[in-house]
Amino acid sequence: MVEPEKLSAIERTAVEVKPMIDFRSDNTGRAAPEILEALVRANHGTALGYGGDDWTAALQQRFSELFETAVRVFPVATGTAANALALASLGPSWGIVYCSEVAHINTAEANATGFFGGGLKLAPVPGDHGRINADRLAETLAGIAPGQIHRGQPSAVNLTQATDLGGVYTLDQIRAVADVAKGRDLKIHMDGARFANALARLGCSPAEATWRSGVDIMSFGATKNGGALCDAIVVFTPDLVDGLAVQLRRAGQVWSKMRFASAQLIAYVEKGLWLNMARASNAIAARIAAGLHDTSGARLLAPVEANELFLELPSATMDALEADGFQFYRRSKNLARFVCRFDTSEAEADAFVAALRRRLTPVTASRAAE
Amino acid sequence: MVEPEKLSAIERTAVEVKPMIDFRSDNTGRAAPEILEALVRANHGTALGYGGDDWTAALQQRFSELFETAVRVFPVATGTAANALALASLGPSWGIVYCSEVAHINTAEANATGFFGGGLKLAPVPGDHGRINADRLAETLAGIAPGQIHRGQPSAVNLTQATDLGGVYTLDQIRAVADVAKGRDLKIHMDGARFANALARLGCSPAEATWRSGVDIMSFGATKNGGALCDAIVVFTPDLVDGLAVQLRRAGQVWSKMRFASAQLIAYVEKGLWLNMARASNAIAARIAAGLHDTSGARLLAPVEANELFLELPSATMDALEADGFQFYRRSKNLARFVCRFDTSEAEADAFVAALRRRLTPVTASRAAE
Amino acid sequence: MVEPEKLSAIERTAVEVKPMIDFRSDNTGRAAPEILEALVRANHGTALGYGGDDWTAALQQRFSELFETAVRVFPVATGTAANALALASLGPSWGIVYCSEVAHINTAEANATGFFGGGLKLAPVPGDHGRINADRLAETLAGIAPGQIHRGQPSAVNLTQATDLGGVYTLDQIRAVADVAKGRDLKIHMDGARFANALARLGCSPAEATWRSGVDIMSFGATKNGGALCDAIVVFTPDLVDGLAVQLRRAGQVWSKMRFASAQLIAYVEKGLWLNMARASNAIAARIAAGLHDTSGARLLAPVEANELFLELPSATMDALEADGFQFYRRSKNLARFVCRFDTSEAEADAFVAALRRRLTPVTASRAAE
Amino acid sequence: MVEPEKLSAIERTAVEVKPMIDFRSDNTGRAAPEILEALVRANHGTALGYGGDDWTAALQQRFSELFETAVRVFPVATGTAANALALASLGPSWGIVYCSEVAHINTAEANATGFFGGGLKLAPVPGDHGRINADRLAETLAGIAPGQIHRGQPSAVNLTQATDLGGVYTLDQIRAVADVAKGRDLKIHMDGARFANALARLGCSPAEATWRSGVDIMSFGATKNGGALCDAIVVFTPDLVDGLAVQLRRAGQVWSKMRFASAQLIAYVEKGLWLNMARASNAIAARIAAGLHDTSGARLLAPVEANELFLELPSATMDALEADGFQFYRRSKNLARFVCRFDTSEAEADAFVAALRRRLTPVTASRAAE
Repeated sequence: MVEPEKLSAIERTAVEVKPMIDFRSDNTGRAAPEILEALVRANHGTALGYGGDDWTAALQQRFSELFETAVRVFPVATGTAANALALASLGPSWGIVYCSEVAHINTAEANATGFFGGGLKLAPVPGDHGRINADRLAETLAGIAPGQIHRGQPSAVNLTQATDLGGVYTLDQIRAVADVAKGRDLKIHMDGARFANALARLGCSPAEATWRSGVDIMSFGATKNGGALCDAIVVFTPDLVDGLAVQLRRAGQVWSKMRFASAQLIAYVEKGLWLNMARASNAIAARIAAGLHDTSGARLLAPVEANELFLELPSATMDALEADGFQFYRRSKNLARFVCRFDTSEAEADAFVAALRRRLTPVTASRAAE
Repeated sequence: MVEPEKLSAIERTAVEVKPMIDFRSDNTGRAAPEILEALVRANHGTALGYGGDDWTAALQQRFSELFETAVRVFPVATGTAANALALASLGPSWGIVYCSEVAHINTAEANATGFFGGGLKLAPVPGDHGRINADRLAETLAGIAPGQIHRGQPSAVNLTQATDLGGVYTLDQIRAVADVAKGRDLKIHMDGARFANALARLGCSPAEATWRSGVDIMSFGATKNGGALCDAIVVFTPDLVDGLAVQLRRAGQVWSKMRFASAQLIAYVEKGLWLNMARASNAIAARIAAGLHDTSGARLLAPVEANELFLELPSATMDALEADGFQFYRRSKNLARFVCRFDTSEAEADAFVAALRRRLTPVTASRAAE
Repeated sequence: MVEPEKLSAIERTAVEVKPMIDFRSDNTGRAAPEILEALVRANHGTALGYGGDDWTAALQQRFSELFETAVRVFPVATGTAANALALASLGPSWGIVYCSEVAHINTAEANATGFFGGGLKLAPVPGDHGRINADRLAETLAGIAPGQIHRGQPSAVNLTQATDLGGVYTLDQIRAVADVAKGRDLKIHMDGARFANALARLGCSPAEATWRSGVDIMSFGATKNGGALCDAIVVFTPDLVDGLAVQLRRAGQVWSKMRFASAQLIAYVEKGLWLNMARASNAIAARIAAGLHDTSGARLLAPVEANELFLELPSATMDALEADGFQFYRRSKNLARFVCRFDTSEAEADAFVAALRRRLTPVTASRAAE
Repeated sequence: MVEPEKLSAIERTAVEVKPMIDFRSDNTGRAAPEILEALVRANHGTALGYGGDDWTAALQQRFSELFETAVRVFPVATGTAANALALASLGPSWGIVYCSEVAHINTAEANATGFFGGGLKLAPVPGDHGRINADRLAETLAGIAPGQIHRGQPSAVNLTQATDLGGVYTLDQIRAVADVAKGRDLKIHMDGARFANALARLGCSPAEATWRSGVDIMSFGATKNGGALCDAIVVFTPDLVDGLAVQLRRAGQVWSKMRFASAQLIAYVEKGLWLNMARASNAIAARIAAGLHDTSGARLLAPVEANELFLELPSATMDALEADGFQFYRRSKNLARFVCRFDTSEAEADAFVAALRRRLTPVTASRAAE
């Protein structure tokens, strides 16, 4: 399976084989029917543009209840827009944003943060399984004198929750990073592209997982968890709102028919839909992990705490799995990523575990010859 | 009726009165049911993300047929994104983009073009009714020596079609501007937020209205004409494609579940839906204009060639119309804009004409006392 | 005389004729010997880089005395850098900066403000002779609702002192603009490329001409008035300092051997050198203006209040003056600019007046035939 | 010795102790008298502004002879400006620039490249002693598919010559990197802040060290090697010139009195001055390195090939050396940098070697107690 990287050429070659069992990404999946139904239901009457409609007002209300504080919610088209614009709102253009080496903002968003931030610099901080380690952040900050002019000035910290390697920050881990950051007046941004998966794992309230643990602003992901065409920025620190509102307009991220976005997001959290979907995809990932626990030849790069598995596998095993009809992304020669969606079935999970066990045995046996 | 300008405050006061007859904008309206149905129909199976899906491939095919040449179509969330990113693709960041003084990019997009263009400068060129006059463009360019370093370098021309004052460029007018521009190696961008309305007026082919008249790239509007959550950039000049693809990704304008956008755009042009809707809104505007032809006290700022009317009215008349339940935007003390949507009814149009006639008489009589 | 606009081509054709009497610009002239001597005197011992030297410390002290308040002075290479970076420090990247239509930042700096400001927009405000009119500024601001998201948000006002048409704001005029601006929380930037000329005209203190009249930050010009290789930003509002310091470093405007810049600026203001030079160039301009007062055929576009004259002249007269060996810039077919330098002699001024009088008579006589 | 990082505060505390023997940086030193004399000699007559003068024309001629090809030379205020603007000229704003982890552009220029490049991303490539390793560059590029949109697109490679750890690329090493880069259509930028030191080491021609080895554009440093107030960009690939000229103007890097900069650069290369100064500082560094060759307790981080030494030392030794009156920068707890200037004397070098030997013995003996 090849990364879909050549989409920019008009003469795109079809990289998609007949899908059989798809673990490529949580963005290859369907949307929850409830979300599309809400979108269709919003199609009546006229409504003021650019967010001046009743749905968007209701969205503010609904999320403020959800987060147990007055929040401001800005629907945006993509997680990249949410991340980059949220981070750009947190500090000056000569700022430094600390993140994990493997953070999505650092590896997969074409440096959107650097662009929207006007030259903002991303600086990786070590940690395990896609997390930032609070002590290592403290060491890094200690090396940058306040007021120095040569490196830019620390301005924010980005946490991906769940992490880009399938881990989940505990509340203590978030707070430890936030404590270090606040000691230096840095703001905290949470990239919650898979926030629902993390929340389902943590079992705490949305408030605890965010502002009560020090988060100032978050990218609230819906797309990867059964959404369709929008994510959101949720602002917990009110003085960020006014600037962000103009910046979003300038960024082409304020739909004139905003009701169709707001309606999706309201439906997403209605009656626990989002958490139900996240629990489902987490459970599938856990089921696969459990199925592999005594398998030799496949090593998990990180504990499976959300809906992704990163497996070190012989490349021949990857070839064989593809021949069996499984779709997934190769991250490197011996590392593959498998992502579970809310609608991935237990049967698909079990088929994958069975295939992997079957394919690993002969491969492992022949590895000495490789 | 107040412009919805204070949406950035959390404690937004409800500016929306009970809608009665809404001429505020073509973005206050519904989406065409066909478009939402197509979106819902796309919700099956898995599909490669970021545009690697069958719907997006079909979109390229469909629009290439429509425009009678191989085009590249990039769905984007908003017209502002389409305009700014298209213009940023046409030249260097030190470029000058010529546009009408009243162009949407100059008055209503929070300088998105300057931002996405990395400091790109907009320079207004005079013309009637929102058009750029080709001779005035030539004069302006003559004043900027090639190679000079003090002003930036001319790079592109932006035409709004239909114009921001409700006019429509004829093909000859487009070609005249394009000829001047091409003589200086400038690229042409068409802001087609209301392209369907212009095309319905012109009665020519999409190809004639664009690349055959010199247009290199266009913002293809759908939202204002019965769309829901996406517009598009259509590229006619192939060497712009690769850079734009990366820039769109970086701008957070590439949906991972792109199929839901592409499906909307395919439905938009299917069986002439877009032109049928545009003809409907144009006809309503023409009906109102005809109804006013012998009215004293209301003066059209520009000929009504698409779906908008700009009326010079006494402010007391505006107050009276609002009291009658009509919604519209005041552009200045004595200028009001009335926009017709695809689903504005003839009855609404007639009610407006009647109210305006009724309200003008006493107001006009009392104007001496104002 | 042709504008030196084609310097970017390697094969530059020599546009410079044998100079005879040069009124092209105040940047074509020599530096004051005192300034270069100070630079040379600074060349001893070692000194900490990037402004950590004794000369730069003395500069802070000297300018703080000069302005009768604690200021921060940042030497920069050019007036364009001073203007753009000062303005970028005054507000967010989605800001609007109000300026005169003919302001240098709007006409001659390749949109440096838009670039350094990350998409900052310049919005012209009418006024006479290169000034902003306070009432017109108030009207403009009244049209932009606080909190609206569609146009960007007003952030700063730029005043050019002396103006780009050779005028000088009175203190009352500055205060009137500042009052309007402060009423909307806008900051005031003074482009003082010819601040010494203005000050020489006003006869007030530097403090009165700047922060006591509401100026927050200024571009302090030296180059045009006998300087060599640096101008400066002078900051009156302390909370602008820290961000600006980093932004200047990032902009490549912090010399590592800063002492050689600071020494120039100290010498520039020592013993009134700057004001003496400005008085000299102002006096030459006044002498020319006086010499023309009863001349028909040459009309001053603006009162001569500093060291520049803008003369409406028949183009044939311009040709004739050039043939006589006078150098100057043509701003348009019938408008020429004449700039007096600190070392322009009275004899040069008188020669120019005599030539103009001589050349106007026959030209004027023949104008009917033109 | 503390890094002069807090210069942004008005109340700067004097960090400079009475200088005794200064190894802090090559930017703490004097300028060569020949350079300042040339600057002073240029102060006669009038001259067209912004580079339209005879000195700047002569500079083009002189450097074209020096590099044995028609080059374009743009004087700029600082090396940061040279680097960032040169790199910004090499590709689109969504580009990736490969550099060493320790490259000045990555560690010490406040992300100027990201800013001037409009969001350009720096990506470190491993290598020894501040170099980029060609094989590692090839591996890195192999991981980025052409046409992919998620990471940005590779656009340029930055080589620091001499490197930021005191090494010098051999011609073969430059060519190896250039070969890999050209295979992917990447441009090569050389940060030649210490180009003279590298050239003195290599003993080859300027042409061989640059464009004949694949360099497209370079930052030509003078400041660190006896210059005063300017460095330069030298362009070898002609199609980069026109855009760069406008960008420099917009960046506030085009002095109106350019003759005073061009005169410095002409003097810098006249009669081999630059290479004589570089040989002198290199020789001092080599003398120190030779003096340390049998010293235990001090370890060179990299071979001394130019004018810098990076020494791993016990921190107590650093304290002792400072107490002895030596000035230098601590890069970390156990790493110190010593930089030799063109006017550092052999006596200063010998005094340092003696002190280090003296201070190392007791310190080393007592290290067990640390």
